[in-house]
Amino acid sequence: MRAITIPEPGGPEVLVWTEVPDPRPAEGEVLIDVVATGVNRADVVQRQGFYDPPPGASPYPGLECSGRIAAVGPGVHGWSVGDEVCALLAGGGYAERVAVPAGQVMPVPEGVDLIGAAALPEVVCTVWSNVFMVAHLRPGETLLVHGGSSGIGTMAIQLAKAVGAKVAVTAGGPEKLARCAELGADILIDYREQDFVTEVREATGGRGADVILDIMGAKYLDRNVQALATSGRLAIIGLQGGAKAELNIGALLTKRAAVTATSLRARPVEEKAAIVSAVREHVWPLIANGQVRPIVDRTLPLAQAAEGHRVMEASTHIGKVILTTG
Amino acid sequence: MRAITIPEPGGPEVLVWTEVPDPRPAEGEVLIDVVATGVNRADVVQRQGFYDPPPGASPYPGLECSGRIAAVGPGVHGWSVGDEVCALLAGGGYAERVAVPAGQVMPVPEGVDLIGAAALPEVVCTVWSNVFMVAHLRPGETLLVHGGSSGIGTMAIQLAKAVGAKVAVTAGGPEKLARCAELGADILIDYREQDFVTEVREATGGRGADVILDIMGAKYLDRNVQALATSGRLAIIGLQGGAKAELNIGALLTKRAAVTATSLRARPVEEKAAIVSAVREHVWPLIANGQVRPIVDRTLPLAQAAEGHRVMEASTHIGKVILTTG
Repeated sequence: MRAITIPEPGGPEVLVWTEVPDPRPAEGEVLIDVVATGVNRADVVQRQGFYDPPPGASPYPGLECSGRIAAVGPGVHGWSVGDEVCALLAGGGYAERVAVPAGQVMPVPEGVDLIGAAALPEVVCTVWSNVFMVAHLRPGETLLVHGGSSGIGTMAIQLAKAVGAKVAVTAGGPEKLARCAELGADILIDYREQDFVTEVREATGGRGADVILDIMGAKYLDRNVQALATSGRLAIIGLQGGAKAELNIGALLTKRAAVTATSLRARPVEEKAAIVSAVREHVWPLIANGQVRPIVDRTLPLAQAAEGHRVMEASTHIGKVILTTG
Repeated sequence: MRAITIPEPGGPEVLVWTEVPDPRPAEGEVLIDVVATGVNRADVVQRQGFYDPPPGASPYPGLECSGRIAAVGPGVHGWSVGDEVCALLAGGGYAERVAVPAGQVMPVPEGVDLIGAAALPEVVCTVWSNVFMVAHLRPGETLLVHGGSSGIGTMAIQLAKAVGAKVAVTAGGPEKLARCAELGADILIDYREQDFVTEVREATGGRGADVILDIMGAKYLDRNVQALATSGRLAIIGLQGGAKAELNIGALLTKRAAVTATSLRARPVEEKAAIVSAVREHVWPLIANGQVRPIVDRTLPLAQAAEGHRVMEASTHIGKVILTTG
């Protein structure tokens, strides 16, 4: 088969579309003929040489895919050759075939094509596990999403609205904010012009955000704590603004608040399976009834993965950038 | 009635035992004839002028008491004059009488006298709400308790052992550690001589602590994060080592860990009632069957509250210092 490889770290141009050995499904795994794969920021960091795949994972980038089951390994039940599926991967999505533990595979949701299905696993599993399984966002509460127009952001807006929460977003510029509003965001904050602490407080009558989904890490830590409501939960899923910052523990204590930080990729197979199972139970019905949908910015051929990375790095996209093998 | 008042902030000598107006039970409150009250570090900080009572609370110190119900306000069911009780207070325990919302009142547990009962509310509610309701310590997991010989520490050791967890403690010197061991602590760390990160890692096969109950705040933040296991939860309940420190968000993210900070006193009445209700359900039976008991370092007359504060500030006590009206 062919895959995107990273012979050496660097810019988008280091990505090479080349012939590699076929993967084989181990016990408990299925082999998927990949139709489409989503671009994630983690792929860019892996390409730059700063995010090695976890032990045992494919060396090729790609944390999610859609496609058809090509083979079923020993000990797998419930999946058959030919099934149309999407899957959460520890790597290897930028390829014509990928092997994945069966617990990370989901059926393509009703009403979604294989391109759309490739846009779902990472964002849905990340948002559901953080905003709902860890931070327990409840109806009537306010969620603040940083980067509201990103793949994660566009899914977080939809899921939070679907459960009856109020949603505040930050994004860069009126065009991105307009798209967030179309998806249901209630409070629109242009981070280039406005201070999100002030804006969130004003829009919530001084209360603040009950849950914050953050991708910036250090750069926003102090302001995120300021923007939290009493009993608020800050869920950090990215470190785009650095990894170390001063925490005002006194403010956290006064608010009885929590800071969590997670990543999906390094979780053990059984934790991923538990998240995937919860997503099938809680999110797939919302997609089937049209309340939540995949947001695809554009599709490109997998051989042009470098162009996908350039789009991601320029942050001009809204929703997901999808690469297709077809 | 008489109460300990704080005419001006300062050292233990500023505490004055004097005549004050009797409190009256408002709607939903009971009035307690106080028999005993526990000394908490928060009382010391209040005396120093750094911890004002929350709005509506008694101006006198004292966050817990035991005694007998002297009167029942309108709308209170389930309590009668003469009942022997203990209670979690927002203040006012250093007095002959105190009014308290009925949801914060508990019966004196079977097998415990009124002196012992005064040693329970703050430590049991603090440990249960943080270690179990927030951090969800599970059987087989490891809890690290800083200040293992304190009131909070001696209760945390017993409760964690009662649910089948492994317990590591830090304390200053072999005598305090020996008392922690008697209560069931498995891993004894003298913070004057040993590094708790190294010791906890070694004692857990490199895994670290699943839950840490911390009273130091800033001073221990970085080392606490280092000492956490994957999926670990750091519960901060005190700021004895300062309120601001650098948080290594990258380390937190790699571990998929959580930092929470809470205080009991400022919580709204309904949250305190929920904690008290959980404590009656889960902890009172453990006390009744002898698995968990109040640890009283000494009792002093309430008029000598200053001496109780000196003991607390010298940190020579093990367990609780109790003041009695009798």
